[in-house]
Parts: sequence; C-alpha cells; structure tokens
Amino acid sequence: MSKIKNVKTQLFKVPLPEVLSDAKHGDHFHFELVTVTVTLEDGTEGTGYTYTGGKGGQAIRAMVEYDFAPELMGKDGTDIAGLYDFMEWHIHYVGRGGIASFAISAIDIALWDIRCKRAGEPLVRVAGGADTSCKAYCGGIDLMFPLEKLLNNIRGYLARGFTAVKIKVGRPELAEDVARVKAVRELIGPDVTFMVDANYSQTVEQAIAMSKAFEPYDIYWFEEPTIPDDYQGFGTIARATNIPLAMGENLHTIHEFSYAFEQAELSFIQPDASNCGGISGWLAVAEMARKYDIPVCAHGMQELHVSLISSQPNGGWLEVHSFPIDEYTKRPLVVENTRAVAPEAPGTGVVFDWEKLGPFEVK
Amino acid sequence: MSKIKNVKTQLFKVPLPEVLSDAKHGDHFHFELVTVTVTLEDGTEGTGYTYTGGKGGQAIRAMVEYDFAPELMGKDGTDIAGLYDFMEWHIHYVGRGGIASFAISAIDIALWDIRCKRAGEPLVRVAGGADTSCKAYCGGIDLMFPLEKLLNNIRGYLARGFTAVKIKVGRPELAEDVARVKAVRELIGPDVTFMVDANYSQTVEQAIAMSKAFEPYDIYWFEEPTIPDDYQGFGTIARATNIPLAMGENLHTIHEFSYAFEQAELSFIQPDASNCGGISGWLAVAEMARKYDIPVCAHGMQELHVSLISSQPNGGWLEVHSFPIDEYTKRPLVVENTRAVAPEAPGTGVVFDWEKLGPFEVK
Ligand SMILES: [Mg+2]
Ligand SMILES: [Mg+2]
Repeated sequence: MSKIKNVKTQLFKVPLPEVLSDAKHGDHFHFELVTVTVTLEDGTEGTGYTYTGGKGGQAIRAMVEYDFAPELMGKDGTDIAGLYDFMEWHIHYVGRGGIASFAISAIDIALWDIRCKRAGEPLVRVAGGADTSCKAYCGGIDLMFPLEKLLNNIRGYLARGFTAVKIKVGRPELAEDVARVKAVRELIGPDVTFMVDANYSQTVEQAIAMSKAFEPYDIYWFEEPTIPDDYQGFGTIARATNIPLAMGENLHTIHEFSYAFEQAELSFIQPDASNCGGISGWLAVAEMARKYDIPVCAHGMQELHVSLISSQPNGGWLEVHSFPIDEYTKRPLVVENTRAVAPEAPGTGVVFDWEKLGPFEVK
Repeated sequence: MSKIKNVKTQLFKVPLPEVLSDAKHGDHFHFELVTVTVTLEDGTEGTGYTYTGGKGGQAIRAMVEYDFAPELMGKDGTDIAGLYDFMEWHIHYVGRGGIASFAISAIDIALWDIRCKRAGEPLVRVAGGADTSCKAYCGGIDLMFPLEKLLNNIRGYLARGFTAVKIKVGRPELAEDVARVKAVRELIGPDVTFMVDANYSQTVEQAIAMSKAFEPYDIYWFEEPTIPDDYQGFGTIARATNIPLAMGENLHTIHEFSYAFEQAELSFIQPDASNCGGISGWLAVAEMARKYDIPVCAHGMQELHVSLISSQPNGGWLEVHSFPIDEYTKRPLVVENTRAVAPEAPGTGVVFDWEKLGPFEVK
C-alpha cells in the first residue's frame, strides 16, 4: 500500500518522417503521445502512455487532468484492480469507449510500471512469463505508396530481419490492390508470412470479393475487412472466404471484445493496450482469447506489446507499427533471429527519452 | 450553401440546488453544459449543446476546439448530413462513442438550429411535424431521498400538472425499493403512470427478482435494469418478467442502438440527442424505432427533446429531468393539460440566457 501523491500529464505531437495514409484515416502528418507519470508516497514512479493518429490528444489529456488526476490523489497506487474499476465507473456516463479508454489506458500502464518496479521484475514476467520473445511482423501505413516505393519498403523490413510483413489494402479499384498483393508476394517469395489490412474500408460484399481475389497469394490474415462495429458482418465474411480474419485495434471495452469473440469468427485478436484499458484491459482480452483458443496479437506500441505478447501462453504476432514511438525511448525494439525480444529491466521497459521528445511537447 | 466562419465553444459548471444521487453515478453536485455556437458567412448563427453529470466537460470542449472547429471552418454549414459523416470519420480512431459522441452532438444541434432558422420554422416542424406536443413525465435523481422527501417530491410533480412519474431504484436492499415503490403507488393512486429506473445497478438475476417484486404496483416501464452493454441480458430479463423494458441514455452510436433493437427486447427506446449524435443521431434512432414499432422517448434535455418527440409519428414520453437546463433558457419547458408543448419560434427553440449562465462559465 502506498498512496498516489502526484499525477503528471504531458502531450506531445511528434512529426512523422513522411506523410502516411490508409484507407479510412486519411493522411497522417504526426502522431500524438500522451504520457502520464504517477508518483507514490514511497517515491516509486511509473510512466504510462497512449497515442493517437493525430486527433483526440487534447481531449485525452483534459480527461486525465480534470476528471482523473484529482480523484486519484491519495488512493492506493498499488491496488490496480481497484483503481481500474473506480476509473471505469467514475467516467461511465461519458465513457464506455472512446477518449475515456485512451485516458484510462495511460494511467493503468503507469500503475503497472510501478507494480513491476516494486517487484523488481520486467513486465514480461509480471504479466505472465510464458516466454521472453515473440513473433513479429512489420506493417506500414503504405496505402498511397507507389508500387516501387511499397516494394522498397518491404525490402527494408526484410533487411531488418523480419520474415513477416503486412501492407494496407483498399485502393479505389480492387485490381490495384490485387496487383500490389501479387507484386509483394513475388518479391518476398513463398516463405515470408504476408498479411493485409483494409482498415475497415470495405462493405461485407466487397470484403468477400477482395478476400477471394487475394486467395492465390497465400495471405496469412485479412485485418479489419469491414467496420469494427459489424461483428456479424465479420462472421459472414469468415464463412464465405478462406483467409483468416483479424481485428481488435478499434475495440475499446471488454464488452466489445466479447461481441467480437462470440460473433465475428476471428482467427486473431489484436487488442491495443493504449486504447483498451491499458495492461489490465489487454490482459483481460488475452484471457478471453485463451478460452476461444485464439492467439492474442496487438496493434502499434511495439515497445510495450513485446512484453505482453511474449508473456502469454497464447501469444501471437507483434505488429511493428510505423508510428515510431520506440525511437523516443531508451530501448527501441530489439529483434533477434526474427523474434522481438522483451526488455529485462524492472518496469514496463518503456523509458522515454524526454530530451528527444521535448521539442514536440504541446503546452 | 453558406460557409462556416466561426465556431465558439463554452463550458459551464452549473451547481444543482441540492446533491442528487443515483445507483451508479454517485452524487451529483452540479451538471456541466458545453455550448457550441456556429456562425455562417451569411450571418446565420446557431447554438447547440451537450451536458454531463459533472465529468468529461473539459474533454468535450477540447475535442470541439482542437479536433473539430479548425476543420469545420470554411465547410458548407447547411450540409448537415455531409458534416455529420465527416465528423464521425474524422475522429473515428478515438471515437465511436464516448466523448466524441457528446462533441459531435453539440455541433450537430447548432447546425440544426441554423437549418431551422434559415427555414423560418420551429424544430418540431422541420424534424417531422407529426404533432406539436407530447406526453411527459417527471423523474428525479432521488435514490437517496428519505421516503417522506421522496413523496413530497412526487407531490410536487403532480402539482406541476404531470400525470406520470419516475423514481430511482437500486437501494442496498430490495425490500427498501419495494417499500418505496409501494408508497409512491399508494400516494399517486391507480391512474398516474409510474416508471422506475435502476441506472444499470442490477445483475440480470437481481433485475428479474426486482421486476417480479414490483409487479403488484403497475409499473409502466423498468429502465436500465442492467448494464447497457448487456443487450442479451436485457432480452433475458424481458422474457422472464412482465414489466416492459426501456433504455437508451447510454447508447452512443447507431450500431449500439441496432444491437439494442435486435437483442434487448425493449418496449421503449430513450436516445439522448446530447450524446447520440445530436438531432441527426436522434432522428436516425427514431426511424429505426419505427421499424421495430417502438415509441421513441428521450433522456434529459427536455427543452430540446420536446420538439423531437412531438415531431415523430411514433413519439413516446418526454422525461423532465432534474438537471434544470431549461431554467437557463429563455423558454423553460411549457406543460399544458399534462402534455409538454414544443416551442414555435424558428430554430431549436432553445435560446440560452447567457447572463444567467455567465457566473458558471469555466474559462
Ligand atoms: Mg490495422
Ligand atoms: Mg435513466
């Protein structure tokens, strides 16, 4: 037991090296990072965070600062389950997903950082300890890259030691997507794992046609073919096609995940600890996934998810996302023998390089 | 066509005359009001708003100011459907409910105020024009009122001309709730319509027991017996009991409403235009309700919902809520012959008394 004596929130708007585009979110010029640093009376300090594609950061910060921070002061910072429950009900009327899920996630991750530091253990061990590394693939927000640039990007992934790659699909014409998928498969050969991600740009009918058109190219999974809300639509696609389905980055509550498990006929689940309730939320999804015998993967935030996926007996694939949050930490993602390796230092292992982030802070 | 040339957002924290408590949100000391005033290049001005029970207001204001206002500038303010679609996708990654639904609602209502003013018509006519008044009931956040105070409160409703009342249930012991329900029914006699609202405090099993215990007292509807996310649980309650079910104040997207219509076996739907996408969102739910042959009711914000419910062929009951937003407008709710009467002035008919609100503004 140790009381929370300070909660510090910071917002950063970090420019991307180039404009990135996908089928549904348009152009990304930067990503937003909201960090929350919690200090306990015993002096332990932990930092959590969440990120966005450029919108919502101010609202997330406002919720942490105005709705959560004052209420958390004086509460036992070691009682993560109790605080999680408190936070969910405290903002319930304006919550149940959306901004609240991002705000709670950042706080929850800070509390887990503290828990691990107090235990003197790395997150991978505290969260489950099944393994110390996991499978990883590279995926880019590359929908608008011309073909040659797309292929060069893929060459870059392979050069970095990855043997699994993902590209965006959802160009105006299906024939364009098919040509890109074909070209990538020809480039990588038959042995590299290859996923596609439509960012829910397709109707159910379009997604079925797309999946069938991709069949000759040995696609490992088809991510977010249609809108995340249409759980039964996912089921329809799964039954009509052969490529396994994946989703999760847009599911924010345990209820949404339970609808997905029950109705969407997924083969992979991809919770993102930055928007599904932090490490507590992510682990709850992982446990649910075990019951459905589905590998638990992730979305974005590779520097943190590497520990979570590695920790689980049903750990699946780590996405190495093109928002390079890990470049602003003291330990960018480590890949050895095609696998991503969890950090060993006590805590989450995500220690921000505040000097490098400094110029991008939004006051 | 006229371009948006200004978007002004204000946040007010309005104290309640007394502390109000319900089963799940704890004590309310004030309510928050976020207003959005949109001005077009042709000089037309409209004001929309949303409200909360005291949390989330800063986040809502931040999202309007940082994520929406700059993007709306220069867009056609008369194209409500186009702007609604734009707003939903613009913040999709941090949206799909929660804070985003409140922010979009406030903006959408401002755009409807403009539409009605440009048409020279009141909202009740522009939104459908089925009638000019609707049934209304009074409901208080009265869970913790001692019995005598509860009964006095009900006497107050009857004195104001209402013939329908609602109370909160969900006290620690079911026997207490039953005693309160019995006392209210004895006070109001057999002819007054009587609803109860558990604010989703019960498990499915508890709700079934509660409904059965209330059966002797002719309860018109049982509102939010269990958590809004458990659509199938609502169905289970509906099939096991005789009192009709109602919900909607915690559903924020058209998808959530469609799950409710399909699975929850509701007899009444209660969308709140302040958190389900404004007037556009509310009317979409009303249309869906017609297909399921369910009366469309509302939650809170009586000064606006009176026009919406009155406008619909399947209009149901208006809740006269104990957050007295209408006391801060130029036309507090009008009740004649037990019915609530829609305003006749062009616009939404909700014109804030800025001088009265002034002292409560949060800069
Ligand atoms: Mg994706
Ligand atoms: Mg209610």
